Amino acid sequence: MSPVQVPRPASEAIASAIAARDATIPPEYLLPKSFKLPKNPSGILESSGLLSAGELAIVNLDATGLAGQIASGTVTSVQATAAYIKAAALAQQATNCLVELFAAEALERAAFLDAELAAGRNHGAFHGVPVSIKDHIDVKGHDSPSGFLSFVGKMVAEEDAHLVRILRDAGAVFYCKTTNPQSLMHLETDSYLGLTSCPFNTALSSGGSSGGEGAIIGFRASPLGVGADIGGSVRSPAANCGIYSFKPSVGRLPNMGMVYPIGPKGYEGILGTHAPMGRSVRDMELYMRVFAAAQPWLREPGVEVKPWREVERKAKLRIGVLYDDGVVRPVAPVRRALDVAVAKLKAAGHDVVEFTPFKSAENWSLIVGDQCRDVTPADISQSKLYWPENGAMVRRHLANSGEPMRPLTEWIISQAGNKERTWAELTALAAQRDYFRYDFGVYWHQAGVDVVLSPVGPTPAPEHGTAKYWNYTSYWNLTNYPAGVFPTGLSVDPALDAEDGSYAPRNDSETFVYDNYDAEVSVDAPICLQVIGFLGLEEETLSAMGTIVDVVQK
Amino acid sequence: MSPVQVPRPASEAIASAIAARDATIPPEYLLPKSFKLPKNPSGILESSGLLSAGELAIVNLDATGLAGQIASGTVTSVQATAAYIKAAALAQQATNCLVELFAAEALERAAFLDAELAAGRNHGAFHGVPVSIKDHIDVKGHDSPSGFLSFVGKMVAEEDAHLVRILRDAGAVFYCKTTNPQSLMHLETDSYLGLTSCPFNTALSSGGSSGGEGAIIGFRASPLGVGADIGGSVRSPAANCGIYSFKPSVGRLPNMGMVYPIGPKGYEGILGTHAPMGRSVRDMELYMRVFAAAQPWLREPGVEVKPWREVERKAKLRIGVLYDDGVVRPVAPVRRALDVAVAKLKAAGHDVVEFTPFKSAENWSLIVGDQCRDVTPADISQSKLYWPENGAMVRRHLANSGEPMRPLTEWIISQAGNKERTWAELTALAAQRDYFRYDFGVYWHQAGVDVVLSPVGPTPAPEHGTAKYWNYTSYWNLTNYPAGVFPTGLSVDPALDAEDGSYAPRNDSETFVYDNYDAEVSVDAPICLQVIGFLGLEEETLSAMGTIVDVVQK
Repeated sequence: MSPVQVPRPASEAIASAIAARDATIPPEYLLPKSFKLPKNPSGILESSGLLSAGELAIVNLDATGLAGQIASGTVTSVQATAAYIKAAALAQQATNCLVELFAAEALERAAFLDAELAAGRNHGAFHGVPVSIKDHIDVKGHDSPSGFLSFVGKMVAEEDAHLVRILRDAGAVFYCKTTNPQSLMHLETDSYLGLTSCPFNTALSSGGSSGGEGAIIGFRASPLGVGADIGGSVRSPAANCGIYSFKPSVGRLPNMGMVYPIGPKGYEGILGTHAPMGRSVRDMELYMRVFAAAQPWLREPGVEVKPWREVERKAKLRIGVLYDDGVVRPVAPVRRALDVAVAKLKAAGHDVVEFTPFKSAENWSLIVGDQCRDVTPADISQSKLYWPENGAMVRRHLANSGEPMRPLTEWIISQAGNKERTWAELTALAAQRDYFRYDFGVYWHQAGVDVVLSPVGPTPAPEHGTAKYWNYTSYWNLTNYPAGVFPTGLSVDPALDAEDGSYAPRNDSETFVYDNYDAEVSVDAPICLQVIGFLGLEEETLSAMGTIVDVVQK
Repeated sequence: MSPVQVPRPASEAIASAIAARDATIPPEYLLPKSFKLPKNPSGILESSGLLSAGELAIVNLDATGLAGQIASGTVTSVQATAAYIKAAALAQQATNCLVELFAAEALERAAFLDAELAAGRNHGAFHGVPVSIKDHIDVKGHDSPSGFLSFVGKMVAEEDAHLVRILRDAGAVFYCKTTNPQSLMHLETDSYLGLTSCPFNTALSSGGSSGGEGAIIGFRASPLGVGADIGGSVRSPAANCGIYSFKPSVGRLPNMGMVYPIGPKGYEGILGTHAPMGRSVRDMELYMRVFAAAQPWLREPGVEVKPWREVERKAKLRIGVLYDDGVVRPVAPVRRALDVAVAKLKAAGHDVVEFTPFKSAENWSLIVGDQCRDVTPADISQSKLYWPENGAMVRRHLANSGEPMRPLTEWIISQAGNKERTWAELTALAAQRDYFRYDFGVYWHQAGVDVVLSPVGPTPAPEHGTAKYWNYTSYWNLTNYPAGVFPTGLSVDPALDAEDGSYAPRNDSETFVYDNYDAEVSVDAPICLQVIGFLGLEEETLSAMGTIVDVVQK
């Protein structure tokens, strides 16, 4: 007879899951108990003394640079992996970004790849390069609890996700899984593992849902990572953590083998995509090229047959600037970054025009009705599309473990109106989505822009628990346009970025954002911007983003 | 005060609609009342004496050939259009394939294009070429009743469908709209306008739902036409009428501006695509190239960014032959055509292997349950996907006019089990569809074939009202693989193609097919075959089809 199982209280299970995760950090890389984490821990890589000068040089490279050094024999994959394991251990202690670190497996793989290279077998563009993976993406032999306590220990992957296999075939070394929030649907990262923080200011959120990736890459503890985005989930953490990301249109990258446990399989109302996060535009493009070359369409129905198209960089871009979406004006530092970028782009000879928002403010109360006046039509139809069954599956997963629902989980589900919808209603919403895409395409062509330059959100990394305005990112999921994020090189400076309180918010969403913004609190938060291109034109979007980044970061 | 409207009985409205359609045929092209339509009317173009020798030469060209003669000045667009107007008038009288003929508009357009060419302005690949359009595709200024009496006179298009605009921009001359069946969901063509017949044997169906296109092109009264396919709707009429068609994977061609009045907009369970029908493989490829070059993705969200890829013809193909899908074995003439094709392909040095059916027989009763034992899982899940609300919209359109439901409309709706489904059930079906696509892809790769050579249906053109086995075509809609149809050059010969009654059908579907097949009745029906390529690989599929056609027709 099997012994009677006494269910543990959730708090005990949570403590146990955290302890198990902590145990994956090699003890020799734990900071002394006496170590006091600074508010801005981004310099710990250097100050801890854990990494050698050579290792510090490694972690300052982008993936393309590191791959080049490995391919040329300047650095071995074992050296690179060892450096990143140390860095990741520190990143975890600074930002709480890890679900698991698997150092031994990674070092064994790195040694294998070094031997392969020595034997003349270069496996591909990422030969020997450590790559971090967001928790809800399957890596063979590793658990994918995906932000739910009830899944801990029960989601060990029998095979790699399709995307992981492609990266592995291209020579990547996997060494960690990174945090995502409960429900996967926060623009922050809060789960049974706790909060993941911005590596430049731990009072602020890393963003989410790919927040572990944002934190670990922003901390320079990963050269390249894989996130996923259905409303801003790679762009929010990239922006909060001062790195790059690139969300293609859905259909370009393979998604098979991602755990998406918040709605039934077969639901198509709104689709997400996996997406790269990293340290340079060239890494974003290399990533896209590697995937196109791998012909994922041969293995995954739903991936478009879309080889990478070679496009020439345009000497003169026509750039539409979205200064304000008409609902929530960005706060001072974001406005400053836009102004700086616009001045530089104009000076460089580009045609920079204002891009006025389309159906983001004017009609929102009309479409939404009265119960949700603080979100745009894009937001609200998307919220409805996100939660066709009012979060029933999320509630089930929480009930299974007794884990409490996090405030942002409750908030995002409530945005859909707390209502289960019928097939007819959901079909009508999908039609509304299609009309919206069509209308927006016409609007885009009328504007005649190559790309749009936009905030990534109304604020830089916000305080934990306050990221409640998605429209600057989710708009590009509803329309399905490719969108990249880049750091401007600027960060929040209280001397420049204070709000004087004179601005009169136009609605509750804006009031909430302005009430919660404080330049003193947000000090050192990186300021990133977003570049959006036309539906399906990843090549042109990345090309323009490269041009813009070169100008803005100069 | 407006006068009280007294609804007319449906029979009166039908007679009026038919009379209005007939009135669009120029009276000088009406056959004398004494003319007795032969069972095989395909020679009327010659025997009627209506077309000159020059016009007969024109209607024997494919679209590429005709475009070349127009571009070189050998033939004018007015001459070509005049020839096709005469031919179409005869095709209507022989097969009942037209909804409207608009001769004057077409001749005016042709004269304009001739003047343009004289002025050095060639509009594109189809400059001056007449193109026929299936009824439910919008052509500016013309009605699109789409097979429903209640729509007659109420669907005059304010603008061209996206695809029509692209063809018009490429120089096409539109001169007619062609019939489709009530509900658009027959593999025949039966509506308030009556039956459309096979141009080689009027006792047989033209096929459908693009049956008007099949008949008019098979009759040589159109060089190129546009149909649409969600279960076989360009392939069935191509096969029945002895012509070519090519159904790409969904997402390659634009569909905006097609009337699809049988389910709500926004429904995505199963999607169709418009598709070309014509006289040669090169026309199918030219059509695809014209659409790719027009970059339809810039105007229609949902069209993939997919320029045409240049592929080289493979000298040696590996061809999988589907002799029998395991549910309904094809009847004698189809088996004969397959045997002839296989022998020629082997003799030409190709690697020809049997392609055994996948989940088309073994598991069907398992998945389907008992009420529909005569269809495959592919069929049945598709039937369910076709009719999420049990045909409610079709019933409404019929009720609006009092038009009776046609037997094949009732039959196809009944295939879904006469049941309205919930969102959860339909979502589960969509997931089942996705798994099916994935599993089939694995199976295809295991078979290691370039293409599959298959029947288009279990029989050549069947008698009116008997096309009830869709699986040879609908399977490639559920999987979404590109599939082309070509004429083998063979036709039904009672001396060769009789069934001796010795075959013991394995199920009700097969019994129905064998009970209804009679070589004497089917005499002269063309025998076509189908070439299927991997999901999304239209280029490779058409290339292989070109190779196969060259061998088989030799």
